[in-house]
Amino acid sequence: MTTRVAVLGATGYTGAELLRLLVAHPHVELTEIVGQSKAGKPIADVLPSFAGRLDGVVASYDPARIAARADAAFACLPHGASGEIVRELHERGVKVLDLSADFRLRDPEIHAAWYGHDASPTLRERAVYGLPELFRDAIRGASLVAVPGCFPTSSTLPLAPLLEAGRIEEGPLVIDAKTGSSGAGRSPSERTLHAELTGGIRAYKTCGTHRHTPEIEQTLSRVSGREVRVSFIPHLAPMTRGILASAYVRPKPGLDAEAATALARARYAGSPSVHVLDPGACPDTLWVRGSNRALLSYTLDERTGWLLCQGAIDNLVKGASGQAIQCFNLLFGYDEGTALEHVATWP
Amino acid sequence: MTTRVAVLGATGYTGAELLRLLVAHPHVELTEIVGQSKAGKPIADVLPSFAGRLDGVVASYDPARIAARADAAFACLPHGASGEIVRELHERGVKVLDLSADFRLRDPEIHAAWYGHDASPTLRERAVYGLPELFRDAIRGASLVAVPGCFPTSSTLPLAPLLEAGRIEEGPLVIDAKTGSSGAGRSPSERTLHAELTGGIRAYKTCGTHRHTPEIEQTLSRVSGREVRVSFIPHLAPMTRGILASAYVRPKPGLDAEAATALARARYAGSPSVHVLDPGACPDTLWVRGSNRALLSYTLDERTGWLLCQGAIDNLVKGASGQAIQCFNLLFGYDEGTALEHVATWP
Amino acid sequence: MTTRVAVLGATGYTGAELLRLLVAHPHVELTEIVGQSKAGKPIADVLPSFAGRLDGVVASYDPARIAARADAAFACLPHGASGEIVRELHERGVKVLDLSADFRLRDPEIHAAWYGHDASPTLRERAVYGLPELFRDAIRGASLVAVPGCFPTSSTLPLAPLLEAGRIEEGPLVIDAKTGSSGAGRSPSERTLHAELTGGIRAYKTCGTHRHTPEIEQTLSRVSGREVRVSFIPHLAPMTRGILASAYVRPKPGLDAEAATALARARYAGSPSVHVLDPGACPDTLWVRGSNRALLSYTLDERTGWLLCQGAIDNLVKGASGQAIQCFNLLFGYDEGTALEHVATWP
Amino acid sequence: MTTRVAVLGATGYTGAELLRLLVAHPHVELTEIVGQSKAGKPIADVLPSFAGRLDGVVASYDPARIAARADAAFACLPHGASGEIVRELHERGVKVLDLSADFRLRDPEIHAAWYGHDASPTLRERAVYGLPELFRDAIRGASLVAVPGCFPTSSTLPLAPLLEAGRIEEGPLVIDAKTGSSGAGRSPSERTLHAELTGGIRAYKTCGTHRHTPEIEQTLSRVSGREVRVSFIPHLAPMTRGILASAYVRPKPGLDAEAATALARARYAGSPSVHVLDPGACPDTLWVRGSNRALLSYTLDERTGWLLCQGAIDNLVKGASGQAIQCFNLLFGYDEGTALEHVATWP
Repeated sequence: MTTRVAVLGATGYTGAELLRLLVAHPHVELTEIVGQSKAGKPIADVLPSFAGRLDGVVASYDPARIAARADAAFACLPHGASGEIVRELHERGVKVLDLSADFRLRDPEIHAAWYGHDASPTLRERAVYGLPELFRDAIRGASLVAVPGCFPTSSTLPLAPLLEAGRIEEGPLVIDAKTGSSGAGRSPSERTLHAELTGGIRAYKTCGTHRHTPEIEQTLSRVSGREVRVSFIPHLAPMTRGILASAYVRPKPGLDAEAATALARARYAGSPSVHVLDPGACPDTLWVRGSNRALLSYTLDERTGWLLCQGAIDNLVKGASGQAIQCFNLLFGYDEGTALEHVATWP
Repeated sequence: MTTRVAVLGATGYTGAELLRLLVAHPHVELTEIVGQSKAGKPIADVLPSFAGRLDGVVASYDPARIAARADAAFACLPHGASGEIVRELHERGVKVLDLSADFRLRDPEIHAAWYGHDASPTLRERAVYGLPELFRDAIRGASLVAVPGCFPTSSTLPLAPLLEAGRIEEGPLVIDAKTGSSGAGRSPSERTLHAELTGGIRAYKTCGTHRHTPEIEQTLSRVSGREVRVSFIPHLAPMTRGILASAYVRPKPGLDAEAATALARARYAGSPSVHVLDPGACPDTLWVRGSNRALLSYTLDERTGWLLCQGAIDNLVKGASGQAIQCFNLLFGYDEGTALEHVATWP
Repeated sequence: MTTRVAVLGATGYTGAELLRLLVAHPHVELTEIVGQSKAGKPIADVLPSFAGRLDGVVASYDPARIAARADAAFACLPHGASGEIVRELHERGVKVLDLSADFRLRDPEIHAAWYGHDASPTLRERAVYGLPELFRDAIRGASLVAVPGCFPTSSTLPLAPLLEAGRIEEGPLVIDAKTGSSGAGRSPSERTLHAELTGGIRAYKTCGTHRHTPEIEQTLSRVSGREVRVSFIPHLAPMTRGILASAYVRPKPGLDAEAATALARARYAGSPSVHVLDPGACPDTLWVRGSNRALLSYTLDERTGWLLCQGAIDNLVKGASGQAIQCFNLLFGYDEGTALEHVATWP
Repeated sequence: MTTRVAVLGATGYTGAELLRLLVAHPHVELTEIVGQSKAGKPIADVLPSFAGRLDGVVASYDPARIAARADAAFACLPHGASGEIVRELHERGVKVLDLSADFRLRDPEIHAAWYGHDASPTLRERAVYGLPELFRDAIRGASLVAVPGCFPTSSTLPLAPLLEAGRIEEGPLVIDAKTGSSGAGRSPSERTLHAELTGGIRAYKTCGTHRHTPEIEQTLSRVSGREVRVSFIPHLAPMTRGILASAYVRPKPGLDAEAATALARARYAGSPSVHVLDPGACPDTLWVRGSNRALLSYTLDERTGWLLCQGAIDNLVKGASGQAIQCFNLLFGYDEGTALEHVATWP
């Protein structure tokens, strides 16, 4: 059994990562490799790791042709631009995995406040948030999946079990996250040049200005049943792939590292992509590079009462393309981990 | 159909890479994960990328037990130490893929000159040099495969077709190679500390002192039918994986980049792991990272007559563990590319 | 006017950095370059950046000889080993800049709890904590300076002005710090090999287990006049130099980013090594690499009330050797910034 | 005594490096910091390492104003654009250090063949090639210095003494060079993004297509008195700064590593920026990072007769801005090494 698949925005980093994973998927037939700005160029010129593996040129976007040739479309398009294209394909009956932020926020007002223009208000209601570990059943029946952002994935996975169980004190949380450069995308800019990024670390879009903030709050509020506020502080680290989210929370009495670990292990039992380390162990993003795995861990500072909750992922895999395929597998009835079982490329 | 497999020296970098690839091999049952210095420790503590994927502890070496539980053994042991262990297992009927240099050199005198002690002179004659693209048939019938070194793989693949066809002028060749730090292995030393390696590049063991020199000469002499001498100059580049070998040769009249490209494409037709780029295109090791692919290319400097022949591989995959599995597949009748089809993790 | 200077432990990273800065110091005569484990080796073999610049061999330790030939000694020795040597030199009348932790903690009980053995209880009382921006006058009159750790320097500089002014709510603070690999020193270990450190980020010694915790608490308690507790979470980032400390605090009413910036600017007016960025600007450690500068910044998350206080330094300069020279300058009456004026090597 | 200095193109990498070195130059008064594309912006916004050190905004280009306020101008402008501006300033009596390639090639026909348009044919005759170690006297009397390219500096320094002495066999040479990313400049492009450059190495503009080829040939022909041809093969390595040039030559009988080392040491005696390592020792670019030093070395492969000649520099210092200041010092009668004595920032 095969599903015919289109990849839109195939020549960026998440597009390339989708292709890498999809060419190894036993139930996928890649029928459309689309990229507007590089349409007409040989795929191997634009994505040199595919030299000798993917022939042909990058296709231009044509919704009718794609609808005729694909059952599912992965959209790796910029926020704002994605919404309209997703709507066109969805209307034509294509199931869509949208990796942009255009359908992630359920509340239209919050979306408008953080992203401005709303391309498809009616479609927003039908979109399902694609974090399988929390919303597996809803994803199975969806026709449009809003694949989560990389920071929200790494941040919400460690926190959700504790909030769901009501074991965290109220009050705004702090999430200090560190990401690699591939998260900034393939559009050239001074600040992401090798020379200006290698060898240093810096925070950016701090303190309530990064658009992943409301996305994290939406999920954490949903699982906890109360309004959760986070102060989200992303840092750009001198590495290509990987996110390490370090969340600092005040646990309710009795929630130590062992209890938190037990809660998370129970919550994610049966989830093939999540592994909870022993209490006090700390994950390295290198241990998940190239894989769809999320490593979680909990450490309590007994002197101060702060509980450190960490999540480590590869931002391009579990934080984007791998998670999109995980959702695709659920959508089309394949085993959730199909084509996603590989271990990290270490060292 | 499955083959029972032991990995010896599993806790070094080539061992870890073997495990990564073998857990995804559809015809392999991993029965023994052996590592002398770390025996008894949980695998996940020693190789953290396997946390949640490989349970159990690292086993100690016991030839009888291994012979009883494995049809094939991959030996990732230091030169010198490997020979004896390989002999023990081979005598017990285990087919061995030896990733050390102990059986690579066919001439005992050359081996003695470069490596000293010869653990197994009689076994040397039976070892087959495991470069599938050149010696595929011999590997199929082998019981002991000497898996090539990383530098010889990247250096001989681009040169062999030209020398085999007699299109290179006689005289010693120059090979300027650049490798990543994983080639230095996992034993800690000042010079391979992150702080002393990051941000700089240097040559080492230059000018006929690196032990891969006779191995390259052996293969090039064999395919060309005359004695070939090379000046091999390795450089340590600030990256973890990858080798780029740049060989400088004087072509015979008529051998330009196009002709060289055509020769290589003809020679490697049907070889799933080799891809020859268009004339003048230059490979980046990033384009093969994590994959078993070798990218070759040829460029002629018309002003000076020098022909640049390049080979790019991942030193841990096509330069070691992937190539070992390629040989294993041939040995046991599986498709040569089984478990080795993946595209590079890029970027 | 010149001061005769000895460097002990000269062959580690902080020793090398001291030599780099001291050879350019107009008032320093380097009379002793001492390193026990590499004594007798040519300096240029052990510290290759000095090839052609520093002749001679590494000297062995001899307190009488050093006391005869040096007015001041910089000790770059391991914790525990340093105390005894510092005492010997100090007794002989040498002024000592100790870069170890042996004399940093004033309370002998706290020292014993975190470091165990106390080599020199009586000397502890005479040691002055060498953070010039906070304790300039005390340093001027000292005969033994305990040069601060790298994390405490980057963490206390941004926090001190706010605590000193009583503008932070009580309760334990969170400090999430990111450091480069040179902070781990030159002793080889698996976890600091290039291959295992490049490309990933991880926390280590989290939650009250890192020995810089009590040092940070000591200074912050001292300036604030009350007992301050911190949860200190260091991370190892894939870069050689640099520390970015991100502290998360609850400001008292009225303390926004502008007010915090103004407080810090007033507090550090006249301090040549500190620069406070505009409110909301975030420093990159690359902007201070190789320099003795500390860049501070303050950002308020108005949605949640958290105030982010950041300090960026080069851990080997302002976090160790540069700061030691800054103290040396004060001790011997030179201008505080002598030999420390250089701008970062960027990019 | 001071010289008033203008820096044009100050906001690129060589411009920033000039500023870093010039602010520490005891005889320089920086009067003009000019950058066309970023004119009007605060210097500290564009070059963040100067925050708190250089106030004011980037000035726009005005030849009259610059001529009135500067005795010397450093031009860090793109090839082609530089020539005209240099001519304007030179005509107004400003001594110019031109870091572009516009006046490096003495033969107008060769310049036209490699660069096309010739902005200033008459001025070309008056330009002096600014490699102090070879042309010190000519530089002293110049009014326009064409500062050499980074690759030519690292390549010609090790080869010149051997060619000058007539000790190399005729026939085209091979130079395999490795450079860091800062050599590509600050204009954003996909191929120099951190994500596409980190972790891999590749050759580019190989085999007679890189414009530094004729510049290397010009100098080597000049010192040897015969026409020298080189096959120049640059590689982009995953580091920010540094060039390692590895030249492969056939020595005449009797020229071994010891003899080559002796020749180079004699040739560069008294040159403060050059250091020749012992025979067989190999330099690391990390050992010169941030410094104006060139480390040279010679190794003979006795098995094959190839002589490896290496030169390691920091491309932004000895390969550009440091060398320009070295020329400036000669031009204005300062000690050649003024403001250039610093040792590498290692590690």
